[in-house]
Amino acid sequence: MSDDQPHRPDTPLLDRIAGPADLKSLSDAQLTQLAHELRAETVSAVSETGGHLGAGLGVVELTVALHAVFEAPRDKIIWDVSHQSYPHKILTGRRDRMRTLRQKDGLSGFTKRSESAHDPFGAAHSSTSISAALGFAVARDLGGAIPEGTGDSIAVIGDGAMSAGMAFEAMNNAGHLGKRMIVILNDNEMSIAPPVGALSAYLSRLYAEKPFQDLKAAAKGAVSLLPGPFREGAKRAKDMLKGMAMGGTLFEALGFTYLGPIDGHDMDQLLPILRAIRARATGPVLLHVLTTKGKGYAPAERADDGGHATARFDVLTGKQKKAPSNAPSYTSVFGETLARLAAADDRICAVTAAMPDGTGLKLMAERFPSRCFDVGIAEQHGVTFSAALAAGGMRPFCAMYSTFLQRGYDQVVHDVALQGLPVRFAIDRAGLVGADGATHAGSFDIGYLSSLPGMVVMAAADEAELVHMVATAAAHDDGPIAFRYPRGEGVGVELPETPEPLEIGKGRIVAQGGRVAILSFGTRLAEVRKAAESLAVRGINPTIADARFAKPLDEAMILKLAEDHEALITIEEGSVGGFGSQVAQLLADRGVFDHGLKFRSMVLPDQFIDQAGPAEMYDAAGLNAAQIEARVLDVLDVAAITGRRA
Amino acid sequence: MSDDQPHRPDTPLLDRIAGPADLKSLSDAQLTQLAHELRAETVSAVSETGGHLGAGLGVVELTVALHAVFEAPRDKIIWDVSHQSYPHKILTGRRDRMRTLRQKDGLSGFTKRSESAHDPFGAAHSSTSISAALGFAVARDLGGAIPEGTGDSIAVIGDGAMSAGMAFEAMNNAGHLGKRMIVILNDNEMSIAPPVGALSAYLSRLYAEKPFQDLKAAAKGAVSLLPGPFREGAKRAKDMLKGMAMGGTLFEALGFTYLGPIDGHDMDQLLPILRAIRARATGPVLLHVLTTKGKGYAPAERADDGGHATARFDVLTGKQKKAPSNAPSYTSVFGETLARLAAADDRICAVTAAMPDGTGLKLMAERFPSRCFDVGIAEQHGVTFSAALAAGGMRPFCAMYSTFLQRGYDQVVHDVALQGLPVRFAIDRAGLVGADGATHAGSFDIGYLSSLPGMVVMAAADEAELVHMVATAAAHDDGPIAFRYPRGEGVGVELPETPEPLEIGKGRIVAQGGRVAILSFGTRLAEVRKAAESLAVRGINPTIADARFAKPLDEAMILKLAEDHEALITIEEGSVGGFGSQVAQLLADRGVFDHGLKFRSMVLPDQFIDQAGPAEMYDAAGLNAAQIEARVLDVLDVAAITGRRA
Repeated sequence: MSDDQPHRPDTPLLDRIAGPADLKSLSDAQLTQLAHELRAETVSAVSETGGHLGAGLGVVELTVALHAVFEAPRDKIIWDVSHQSYPHKILTGRRDRMRTLRQKDGLSGFTKRSESAHDPFGAAHSSTSISAALGFAVARDLGGAIPEGTGDSIAVIGDGAMSAGMAFEAMNNAGHLGKRMIVILNDNEMSIAPPVGALSAYLSRLYAEKPFQDLKAAAKGAVSLLPGPFREGAKRAKDMLKGMAMGGTLFEALGFTYLGPIDGHDMDQLLPILRAIRARATGPVLLHVLTTKGKGYAPAERADDGGHATARFDVLTGKQKKAPSNAPSYTSVFGETLARLAAADDRICAVTAAMPDGTGLKLMAERFPSRCFDVGIAEQHGVTFSAALAAGGMRPFCAMYSTFLQRGYDQVVHDVALQGLPVRFAIDRAGLVGADGATHAGSFDIGYLSSLPGMVVMAAADEAELVHMVATAAAHDDGPIAFRYPRGEGVGVELPETPEPLEIGKGRIVAQGGRVAILSFGTRLAEVRKAAESLAVRGINPTIADARFAKPLDEAMILKLAEDHEALITIEEGSVGGFGSQVAQLLADRGVFDHGLKFRSMVLPDQFIDQAGPAEMYDAAGLNAAQIEARVLDVLDVAAITGRRA
Repeated sequence: MSDDQPHRPDTPLLDRIAGPADLKSLSDAQLTQLAHELRAETVSAVSETGGHLGAGLGVVELTVALHAVFEAPRDKIIWDVSHQSYPHKILTGRRDRMRTLRQKDGLSGFTKRSESAHDPFGAAHSSTSISAALGFAVARDLGGAIPEGTGDSIAVIGDGAMSAGMAFEAMNNAGHLGKRMIVILNDNEMSIAPPVGALSAYLSRLYAEKPFQDLKAAAKGAVSLLPGPFREGAKRAKDMLKGMAMGGTLFEALGFTYLGPIDGHDMDQLLPILRAIRARATGPVLLHVLTTKGKGYAPAERADDGGHATARFDVLTGKQKKAPSNAPSYTSVFGETLARLAAADDRICAVTAAMPDGTGLKLMAERFPSRCFDVGIAEQHGVTFSAALAAGGMRPFCAMYSTFLQRGYDQVVHDVALQGLPVRFAIDRAGLVGADGATHAGSFDIGYLSSLPGMVVMAAADEAELVHMVATAAAHDDGPIAFRYPRGEGVGVELPETPEPLEIGKGRIVAQGGRVAILSFGTRLAEVRKAAESLAVRGINPTIADARFAKPLDEAMILKLAEDHEALITIEEGSVGGFGSQVAQLLADRGVFDHGLKFRSMVLPDQFIDQAGPAEMYDAAGLNAAQIEARVLDVLDVAAITGRRA
């Protein structure tokens, strides 16, 4: 996959590891050596594929220690988010496929049940691991039978993910049920961006007065003192362990035994503590482990984000091998337009849930820090907080990925739409997203937003349209409004000098033709144009329209398209139930189907689509130019040459 | 509204109160008297209307104290869930409309922005108040301008609501931002059901060793010690206040100043503490107030649920005046069928988010307590916990109201559907729900679930169908499955002796007719039958089909209905994007529209529908028999006599 000779490290010990069972015979010193080799192999693999690097490097020792001490897959090791699972994949029989990571037909960039029995619960969105670990523990105690059995369940969760409400809900329930289970708080003081929130400050205080060097002895000494089956001993041990750090009372308030913090890069701390927990834990235990994101690979450690995600890179220099870009990304166009509008309107403010970079809000945060809010991994709160900002007289932009906005759906319904509050939803990563795969696809938002009374739903056909849609949203004070746009680069159109609000509910005719009209919602417009060029060769010149709005629909335009054409085809980057369904409802209501209309609605297929290049994914989805062309030929009953059929 | 002479209490002081401003001139003793009168008036009003009683009675003194000390509507008092807001409504100019509560065109049972400037942020779902209060505080500091201005923001939240992740997210963010805001933790050790979760146990420990009588003096003494603007004094005050109770370190860990607990029924504690907070708070403050749900009305205090919700009742005896029921409720049919199946299959288990009664799981909890899990107000965790129970070899039923499942939508997508795990979603309160109004409507689930690959989506046409659908879900191990059913009583059909699994994706023809086919999904079937009876008089005999499945569709049945009839009408208790859209997509794909089909899809209209009787709400929605009949006549181009038109 690389265009020059990849650097492959020497890994004599790792070469002998076919699976976790092979770790059991290694000495502690060998396990430390194995960790070094595993780190080198992780760097090497990611240098060839790109992907999430920093998180995995931070848990190399923890990964080795967990597999040395526990018995996966019987014991369930559940990696929260799981972008830190690459070392785990290497140790669990997938090393030979690591260089297919995040590619079509390759390994997923996340844990995945269908990929390995060692991935008992897949992830990609954050903060699900404690719920999952509790579910396995409860199922085990109820006699739930699965082929590999169920032993211990262990959630490994970062400090960023721990700040999400869902993690708190799970801790609250786990502390109440009191089942034996293990939560490892992997505290690197960083989610993707630097951490925000009071919990983060609290965690810092927990170890502020206990530098690493003091902890090592404490950790070793603590082993014999761990809570045992006897009440008296347990109490004494607990009291002494508390003295080990500054407290952990927040976790103890929730019913967990708190242990730590320990140095997560020191096998001499990790191994004995984990062994002791395995031998003696009776209820829920939280082990607080301090790690460094990007640990052991200097370019990652130096990076602001700990080398969170990377393109392919040169191992020696750390220099990334990115393809040159032709057009600005939609994300940056959004971010720049918003910052520009915010300069002229001090009511404009912005909310992100731990993604200031990913959503393009970094610029806003730099220029107008008092008006840009990173609420942490907290979409539920973020949406309602935005609603109240609107109620308080501001013009909030709530910028989230489509897939993550699902986390705040009830809040969109209950706090925003029901109250008609003018929150502006900037929905990034709409449609299929490429290497992050099915878990990150933004497939459902058109439907779940368009069904809400009073919601305005737009999709940008290109980056110039996006500029205008940001302005449209800013100017819209009558109720909630959403605009969606995809991951990646724009199509290269010229950006408008001035962002101009669009008329709400008005689409545009892009090309006037005959026989068939193709009504596009979003960036499939470029593929529609390509299809039209190819169709022109056959003498078919479709009318092309850009709907701009899924809600409210441009009823006049759509009814005229239906009237003037033999066939009408809608296309969108979303599932059934969205734009095409809104159009179908209009046509049905108005009796347009009564006397015949060749209507087709091209949507994402009824399947989750695994990672690949975005174009490949849209090919799998049947939404590329060739498939649009085939659909037109089919609906007009013209024999296709290609034989391709969507 | 009452069928016998209602009891109206003497309320000389309350009679002089037109709004909060009138409280400012009252002495503390008079405020105490006002609270007594307000309690009596609340009991009297609810006795005539039914509604949420216990929660309001628990906050009568707090309501008076807040309005006496703060300056609403400039200061924003935000009631979490807001079923405790009846006394607040009485004090804020709505007393004369209290006996229209929860009725058509009457007052909402919840706070509502459109109802009063004193309801700055409406609610009904739990745990949104802290996010809202923070939003107002931030908007105020950014200069956000609204007509009534923005002063302090105060969230009043119960201990149950505090256990939801969203509340934690908001606390985490508020502690980080450090803005002046006030959270009042109204701790009655009860959400709707008795409390669950480690947080609840923690709160109990906070006051376990401090009985009420000790707190009064402490609260008074504390006033002069509250954190002031001077750092030294603040620190000393904080240290001393800590000694007042056992800690509150959990809240302090999140950056809040913790005060309390105090007796929430003693004005001599409430007033001075609130005055001190108002005078001196500089950052986020949490005041822990102990109250008794149903306080001061013996029948409510005695009830297991503190008199949570009630029908109309006799004030002297507390006896409820319920209309006699004709058929079992859908909820109880679900609960009984599930318990019966669970007796025969020990893999069956159940999860509720703080609604064991409301979801009918109480029976399961009584008979199989080890297999029934109340996770607290924690839908996100509840869904993922269910997913892991399935992964661990169990057969989990996740029972939630349609509107609350929105809280766990991302988890349904990411943890259940993407992994194809066989979680059974029992979706109660599907469709319009009556007195609880728009916030509780289950309008969107058909769409947001049917768009998910691999999801099976059913709706029961009557209670007998529901029995079979519970069995269908229990037997379905191939992936996730959901079945929805409405609030209220069944239609009175005989219940089957044995629950039998239905064939997945197969509907049924209910009546064979001609010209027009009506394809129903859910309990509108009864209205369809009524419409058909009326149409028969005109010689029109529709074919009636019960789809049973929105996904997968019974394609053969639907295509044959389309082929055999001039017109096809779908009907469902949900918004556009759901069942009708799935059918439209099928018909379009198969070219059925090409040569003409009179297709109509009857769905909930594009507006939120306020509380009323369920039949009235469906009338407003255009989904009752008369409107079905009108639609049939219209589509067949037969002049209607009634002149009604949907």
